[in-house]
Amino acid sequence: MPPRRDAVPEGGPGAGDGERLARVVLTRVIEPGDERGGRWLRAFGARGLLDRLSAPGSAADLLPGATERRLAGYRARAAAADPHRDLAAIAAAGGRFICPGDPEWPSQLDDLGDGRPIGLWTRGRFGLRTWAVRSVAVVGARACTPYGAHMAATLGAGLAERGWVVVSGAAFGIDAAAHRGALSAGGATVAVLACGVDVVYPRGHAELIARIAEQGLIVGELPPGDHPTPSRFVLRNRVIAALTRGTVVVEAEYRSGSLVTARHARRLSRHTMGVPGPATSGLSAGVHELLRGEAVLVTDADEVVELIGEMGELAPRRRGPVLPRDLLDPRTARVLEALPARGAVDGTHLARAAGTTTDDALGRLYELHALGFVERQGDSWRLTLQALHRSNARRGGS
Amino acid sequence: MPPRRDAVPEGGPGAGDGERLARVVLTRVIEPGDERGGRWLRAFGARGLLDRLSAPGSAADLLPGATERRLAGYRARAAAADPHRDLAAIAAAGGRFICPGDPEWPSQLDDLGDGRPIGLWTRGRFGLRTWAVRSVAVVGARACTPYGAHMAATLGAGLAERGWVVVSGAAFGIDAAAHRGALSAGGATVAVLACGVDVVYPRGHAELIARIAEQGLIVGELPPGDHPTPSRFVLRNRVIAALTRGTVVVEAEYRSGSLVTARHARRLSRHTMGVPGPATSGLSAGVHELLRGEAVLVTDADEVVELIGEMGELAPRRRGPVLPRDLLDPRTARVLEALPARGAVDGTHLARAAGTTTDDALGRLYELHALGFVERQGDSWRLTLQALHRSNARRGGS
Repeated sequence: MPPRRDAVPEGGPGAGDGERLARVVLTRVIEPGDERGGRWLRAFGARGLLDRLSAPGSAADLLPGATERRLAGYRARAAAADPHRDLAAIAAAGGRFICPGDPEWPSQLDDLGDGRPIGLWTRGRFGLRTWAVRSVAVVGARACTPYGAHMAATLGAGLAERGWVVVSGAAFGIDAAAHRGALSAGGATVAVLACGVDVVYPRGHAELIARIAEQGLIVGELPPGDHPTPSRFVLRNRVIAALTRGTVVVEAEYRSGSLVTARHARRLSRHTMGVPGPATSGLSAGVHELLRGEAVLVTDADEVVELIGEMGELAPRRRGPVLPRDLLDPRTARVLEALPARGAVDGTHLARAAGTTTDDALGRLYELHALGFVERQGDSWRLTLQALHRSNARRGGS
Repeated sequence: MPPRRDAVPEGGPGAGDGERLARVVLTRVIEPGDERGGRWLRAFGARGLLDRLSAPGSAADLLPGATERRLAGYRARAAAADPHRDLAAIAAAGGRFICPGDPEWPSQLDDLGDGRPIGLWTRGRFGLRTWAVRSVAVVGARACTPYGAHMAATLGAGLAERGWVVVSGAAFGIDAAAHRGALSAGGATVAVLACGVDVVYPRGHAELIARIAEQGLIVGELPPGDHPTPSRFVLRNRVIAALTRGTVVVEAEYRSGSLVTARHARRLSRHTMGVPGPATSGLSAGVHELLRGEAVLVTDADEVVELIGEMGELAPRRRGPVLPRDLLDPRTARVLEALPARGAVDGTHLARAAGTTTDDALGRLYELHALGFVERQGDSWRLTLQALHRSNARRGGS
């Protein structure tokens, strides 16, 4: 373990179970995106903050800047929380809790500053951190037009085919079309929920969410069982924006939540993109407003990748895998070992060779893609030249 | 007459009839946009150039850089030309020939450098120079969609209602919709043709072109009776771009002529705008390509005016009329005199008061608008404050 450089512990494994458990509790105490809460967390650490919430004293003594009422609310919620029960609930749902300092923590969320999530509740077997490296958000209106749904599905599929992970909010309309597009292409997709990741919302998406939990990842800031509220929807959008390299808005009315996501993306120096539509459509009016500002007009996945791939797209290939093979998750390493030295192979054959399911193999291939080991070619996958050289060098040299 | 400052005469009244007649001939000799021809014209003057074409000698002696074949072509066309017949033909069609140096010459065409038109054949009773001051081009595909036609017509009407002159090419599709939109709003519109202005092309637009000649202006570089060719269509577009303060492309496929107009506009530092459409429509693909470059997305007339009006829109009002009343065309001055000192009046009433037709009154109101004397308010017109002050001052002071 490296020496602690900071007086304030993060919640990851290096921070000890106490700090981690405290963060589990705090997801029940502090609402997503509460920056004052984030400042106290940064100042006192998770355990330190919980200690203050159970200590006697006034708000002025314990939480600089807090009202008594606010302190009372925190105290009540902290007293009612049971982190072990929450961890048991997420485990029962096939999930886990990840927090800053964990190897799986996507460090780009740190760009949110004091609004950074306390932790992320996660379902799905793939690594969020590696997936998020090559991810793009596709968001838009719930009550979209058939044109919008078509564009979102086409973009979702096209991005997946180009090795990109599609992130959205699992809502009706554009979100669902984007997720389904990615799934239909055997691609990787992440749903960021505004409720507990074991809560099915919207209920009409029970099947879609189950499918994403199987073939992709479900993440959210809210603890198991928590329900969405209007403000949680809005604040969820900042996570979508921060997690991804760029946000594409497909259809949005003036003043819609998708525009909030796009503006978050812009503030976080992510790429902001919009798909144009008829100027006569109110559902394109918000997108056109964005496009009259700093957003870039995109009409297909190639144009999205051309933009968001600028800095990073080719870099991993050029510099080869970013992680030594030996540090891979053993199940991911098995998929890598199953790839032939020459030629490409499809996910189903690869899964058989690696002794796993197709969904599992595909998800791990997206991890390997993000790490620079493999590339997608149509429906098949092959080793990158760099991975091959490295593998040969290792085999020959050791 | 001011002293000649330049060894090379322009073709306007100050230049004498010889120079002017020579330019009439040259519109039969040099194709629109021929920059080598423009250089010789600049070097030798119109008469000087014609003299060379009738003098004995080789191309090397007479036209530096020309081939013998080119010289022979020029000579044959110059010999066959009859400027008096052409001037009689344009007069019979109710038109005139205007050229650099004329009071009616729109000086922004000089931005075309050696590709500047030799002269413009013109039909219609209004002043091209003043109309062009507040003009915007609306162009696009011939085989447009109903959506595109709707947008062009709405823009044409909206721009006319805001006192802007709508310039287009009288082609089927977007062009026609833009002209009709302007006409439908009692507005001013200019058709720039790629053929003689007495030639009806396309033939299906006989009625539209006649209406524009009556209520607006028809202009073109080609002499009476000349027919369009593919290259003439392309080169016509540079005149549309140069004449106007900005170009709006409504629908255009990849590599379409409308994109040429937009690129001309950009090169000439005019505003380039595009109306978005469905990303699934091939007819919007060219526009979207423009919008991914430097063109600005616009969805209605307000957005167009906001952009192209930036520098000039409010300026004439702020600094008042740009021309003393006494220099106005007497028929235009009569319309101005007919305006009440207080309140607004519609075109029909104004026409009656000025003793002219509604079309004539409206066209002159657009001139007066460009010159800062009047402003449009819905379907009515009123004196600007500045025009009023100036008029009062004049009445009181002299």
